[in-house]
Amino acid sequence: MYEGVVQGLIDELGRLPGVGPKSAQRIAFHILAADPDDVHRLATALTEVKEKIRFCTVCGNVAEAEQCQICRDPRRDPAIVCVVEESKDVVAIERTREFRGRYHVLGGAISPIEGIGPDELRVKELMTRIADGTITELIIATDPNLEGEATATYLARLVQPMGLRVTRLASGLPVGGDLEYADEVTLGRAFEGRRQLDV
Amino acid sequence: MYEGVVQGLIDELGRLPGVGPKSAQRIAFHILAADPDDVHRLATALTEVKEKIRFCTVCGNVAEAEQCQICRDPRRDPAIVCVVEESKDVVAIERTREFRGRYHVLGGAISPIEGIGPDELRVKELMTRIADGTITELIIATDPNLEGEATATYLARLVQPMGLRVTRLASGLPVGGDLEYADEVTLGRAFEGRRQLDV
Repeated sequence: MYEGVVQGLIDELGRLPGVGPKSAQRIAFHILAADPDDVHRLATALTEVKEKIRFCTVCGNVAEAEQCQICRDPRRDPAIVCVVEESKDVVAIERTREFRGRYHVLGGAISPIEGIGPDELRVKELMTRIADGTITELIIATDPNLEGEATATYLARLVQPMGLRVTRLASGLPVGGDLEYADEVTLGRAFEGRRQLDV
Repeated sequence: MYEGVVQGLIDELGRLPGVGPKSAQRIAFHILAADPDDVHRLATALTEVKEKIRFCTVCGNVAEAEQCQICRDPRRDPAIVCVVEESKDVVAIERTREFRGRYHVLGGAISPIEGIGPDELRVKELMTRIADGTITELIIATDPNLEGEATATYLARLVQPMGLRVTRLASGLPVGGDLEYADEVTLGRAFEGRRQLDV
């Protein structure tokens, strides 16, 4: 309906998550009216992120180098590892400034309905990290929902024979919610009150 | 908080209308996981739209050439011109397939509060188009709100001495709606504009 390139842009924008046809049109017209430099910066940011971002070979977090900023930071305690579902969760936890250890990003949670089992997650990589004996505590910070709890229980059972402390973030996180939406105080409390997982 | 380029992308996305920080983060992670070709297409669509799109020298609609598709189309009746606020309105009217004339895009509506007067709109260009005598009817299709009505009244007064027919889109009940949910103004307009039912 629009001139070719405008419709093309609306179509591409409409493919983004949470952007419906009306929003796509609104954004497209914003782009039409926007400063060319601003649009250029957005286009560059999009391409750069694909060119420069990979996943940390150690923890699976987003990284600009072979290892992410946290894995490269010698001040971070390598003995305590916090296991999360997504890189977004790393950012949420970092905001609390409560945690000085390292992370392991699973890339999701066990979900039989979506066909995601331990093999689809970075569980094998976690086992390899634990095997060298540096890690003494594993804090399981998967989301406090069905899939996250299932993943926590699965990991706890798998890891406990290896003789390290396995903890789960304290309740205080609203059940049924998403970890990334928790406010800093709640998330900080959850860290303080983490408890042993006995299975 | 994120690695530089990821945060950079989140910031750029957050500047778009209707995209808050959480949506920006969600889109950024979608981009990270997306097919590089898809992201390249989006980035290209953004730049292309800025390079290729200008505004039709005749009607002010978005255009890829000096004139827009509609002004270039010889089958469109040049005697009837529909005046709208934005290019989006052109698309909305085109979808009805009711109108075979041409358009004039004002670029907004008169709004003393926002400091937009006739000089900020493409009113002078409209007068020039009318001056050559081709246009016999002007359909004023500005929005049915305060600014749109003010603009319609202003244009009607300005144009009427030039001896052409000036009409305004009918206000009334939305088709498919419920009479009991209509607001008083709309219902009042629907009464005023009632027409003979010939059966």
